[in-house]
Amino acid sequence: MSAAFSLKKTSSQCSARLGRLTTTHGDITTPVFMPVGTQGTVKTISNDELVEAGSEIILGNSYHLYLRPGADLIAAAGGLHRFIGWKKPMLTDSGGFQVFSLTTLRRISADGVEFQSHIDGSKHFLTPEKSMEIQRAIGADIIMCFDECAPYPCTYEHAQKAMDTSVRWAQRCKDDFARRETASPTDQLLFGIIQGSVYADLRRESAQRTVAVDFPGYAIGGLSVGESKDEMKAMLEWTVPLMPADKPRYLMGVGMPEDIWEAVERGIDMFDCVLPTRNGRNGQVFTLRGKVTVRNAEYIRDFGPLDPDCDCPVCTTYSRAYLNHLCRAQELLVLRLLSLHNIYFMIKLMKIIRKSIELDNFADAKKEFYATYFSKTQR
Amino acid sequence: MSAAFSLKKTSSQCSARLGRLTTTHGDITTPVFMPVGTQGTVKTISNDELVEAGSEIILGNSYHLYLRPGADLIAAAGGLHRFIGWKKPMLTDSGGFQVFSLTTLRRISADGVEFQSHIDGSKHFLTPEKSMEIQRAIGADIIMCFDECAPYPCTYEHAQKAMDTSVRWAQRCKDDFARRETASPTDQLLFGIIQGSVYADLRRESAQRTVAVDFPGYAIGGLSVGESKDEMKAMLEWTVPLMPADKPRYLMGVGMPEDIWEAVERGIDMFDCVLPTRNGRNGQVFTLRGKVTVRNAEYIRDFGPLDPDCDCPVCTTYSRAYLNHLCRAQELLVLRLLSLHNIYFMIKLMKIIRKSIELDNFADAKKEFYATYFSKTQR
Repeated sequence: MSAAFSLKKTSSQCSARLGRLTTTHGDITTPVFMPVGTQGTVKTISNDELVEAGSEIILGNSYHLYLRPGADLIAAAGGLHRFIGWKKPMLTDSGGFQVFSLTTLRRISADGVEFQSHIDGSKHFLTPEKSMEIQRAIGADIIMCFDECAPYPCTYEHAQKAMDTSVRWAQRCKDDFARRETASPTDQLLFGIIQGSVYADLRRESAQRTVAVDFPGYAIGGLSVGESKDEMKAMLEWTVPLMPADKPRYLMGVGMPEDIWEAVERGIDMFDCVLPTRNGRNGQVFTLRGKVTVRNAEYIRDFGPLDPDCDCPVCTTYSRAYLNHLCRAQELLVLRLLSLHNIYFMIKLMKIIRKSIELDNFADAKKEFYATYFSKTQR
Repeated sequence: MSAAFSLKKTSSQCSARLGRLTTTHGDITTPVFMPVGTQGTVKTISNDELVEAGSEIILGNSYHLYLRPGADLIAAAGGLHRFIGWKKPMLTDSGGFQVFSLTTLRRISADGVEFQSHIDGSKHFLTPEKSMEIQRAIGADIIMCFDECAPYPCTYEHAQKAMDTSVRWAQRCKDDFARRETASPTDQLLFGIIQGSVYADLRRESAQRTVAVDFPGYAIGGLSVGESKDEMKAMLEWTVPLMPADKPRYLMGVGMPEDIWEAVERGIDMFDCVLPTRNGRNGQVFTLRGKVTVRNAEYIRDFGPLDPDCDCPVCTTYSRAYLNHLCRAQELLVLRLLSLHNIYFMIKLMKIIRKSIELDNFADAKKEFYATYFSKTQR
C-alpha cells in the first residue's frame, strides 16, 4: 500500500509537488481536485460529464450514504462504484465531519458518537469501527479515519480533547481496518486525519501522533471552517512539514481557487470541495478573470460566452444572456450548466497548477493567477 | 411554402401516414413527437442530449418567451435558435393557449386579449398581429396562428364564439404574416388551428373556414384539455378528414403514448407534450411495458435497469435502485435522468409507429403496444 503514491517532481521555488496516486480504479495525478458526490451523485452532473471534464476521482460522504440508501444496500449493489455507475477512483470521508456539523443531540464518548439523523431524527451510534465497516461496504478506493471535528472558533481545551480523541480513534480505525483486511483483503487505502484547530502545538502533536500510527496517506481536517486565510496558511506551514514527503497530503474541504494555490505552494496534493457545484446552483461561476454571478442584471443582454477563456461545452454553446434568462426563469438546466462549467474550471485550474510545477515556474504562475483572478475586484 | 410537406406513404389499414416536412433547419420525418422547450429549454435536458435522443424538432412557447426574456432580446440574440443554441427545426405556439390557461383578468375583444402576466401581474395586450410580430422575432421554422382557446367543459355558445373568433384571427394572422413576408421574406411556415371544443359541427365549421384561409399546415387545438378519450377520438374522426391530405396535421398538446397511437391511426402527423419531462420530474417514466414510478418503495432494492427494453444512456448506466435513491434523496440529477429516458422513449415510440406504417402493419403494431403497455394494470 505504501507504494501507492509516487512523487514525480518538487518545485525548486516552494513545496509544490507533482505526484501520482495509484488505485484499483485508476491513477490520479496530483495536485488533484476531487468533485464531491455527497449522496452518490455530484449534484446535477452525470458521470459521463465528469469523465469528459477530466475528473480523475470523486468523493462520497459516508454519513449521507449510511443514512440513505444505507451501506447494506450499497454493498448489495456491489459497492458504490457499481451503484452509481462510476468507474474511476473514489474516496469516502468517515462521516465525522457531517456528524459534527449536521446533526443535533450529539453525545461524544471515548467509544464514539451518538447522534440524531438530520433526515428523520433517528438515533445512531458511530464509532471508528462502525465507520470502517461502512466505508468497506461502500468500497471506495481511499477511505478516511473517523475523527472528531472541532468547530470554529473553539477553545484550546476543546480542540485538544477533540484532537486527542481523533488520534486514539485513528489507531482504532487502523486496527479494525487491518483485521478486516486480513479476513478479506481489498485494495482500499486508509488515510489518517490531522486535527488541532488553529493551535500550532496541537497541529504538531496531532501530526506526529497520527504519522506514528502510520497510514498510506494523511489529511488535514478542520480547516476552511471559518478561520481566516492567514490562520489557514499558518496551520499549513506548521503541519505539512510534519507529514511524510512520500505520502499524499490531502487538505479536506478546500476549496477556493486561491486557497488551492496557497495550499499547493505549501505541499498539499489533494483537495475536495462542494463550491463548484454549490456556487453553480447559486448562479455563480469561476473564471480565470474572477467570479461571475451570471444571474446579475448586468448579463441580461450579454451575448458573449460565460467564460471567454474556457472551451467547456457550456462556454462554447451558451451565452451569458441565455444563462441569465435560465436563472431568472428558474430553469433547472442552468443549475447543471453552471455546475458543469465550474467542474471544468477546477480541473483546468489543477492542470495550470500542475503545468507550472512541471515547468518549475509555480511562483510566476501563481502571481499571474492572482493578478487576473482578482483584477475585477481591484479595478 | 406549400411544397414543405411530402407524403411518403399511407397505411392501407387506417389513416396513418408517413411524411416529411422540410424546413430551413432540416427535415422532420412524420409522425413526429416534439419535446416542449417552454422557456427556451426542454426542462433539465441539454441540446446535445436532445439531438442524441433523435429529436428532430422542439417547441418554444411564445407566451413565456414574450414575457421573459422578451421577444426583442431574443431578436437581438439573432433569434431563438441562436439564443438557445439549437440548430434543428423549431416550432412556436402563438401564446393563445397560455393566455387562456395561465393568466388572470382576461378581457377578450374582437381585436385581441388583454391579460395579466402570471409572473408579475403586468398588463399586456395580445392580438393576432402582435403574435405574428413576436413569433417572427423569435424566428421558429413553424409558427402558429393566434387563437382563442375555449376551456373544457364549455357551453356550445362559448365554444362557437371562441371558434368564430379563432377563424377571424387566423385570417388576420395570415394577412399580417404575408405583409411582413413581403417586406422581409423568411422561410417560416404559418399553420392554422382548428377549434370547436367537443362539438362536431363547430369542429367541421372551424376546419372548413380555416382551410379556406389556406395555410401550409393545420393544427387541431383545444383537445387533451380534460375531455374523455372517446370524445377526443370522435373529434379527430370528425375533423381530420376535413384537413387537406397534402398538408401536415398537428394535434396540439398530445400526449400520452396511447393517444398518439389513436391519433396517428386517424391521420395526425405531429405531436407535442410536456408529459415526458413533467412526468420525469415527478419520478415517473414511460416504458413499453407501462409506466414505472421509480420513486415507489418497490424499487428500493431493484438493481435492474429502469427499462429493460431501452438502450438510452440512463437505462444502460443506472439501476432502478439508484434512481429510487436519487428520488428519495431529492437529488436534482434524477430529474434530468428520468426526463431524458422519457424523451428517448417518445422518440422510440414514434420510430415504432413509423416503422409499422412503413411495413403496413400498423393495426398489429398498435395491438401489440396496447397489450404490452397495459399488461401491468390488467394483471
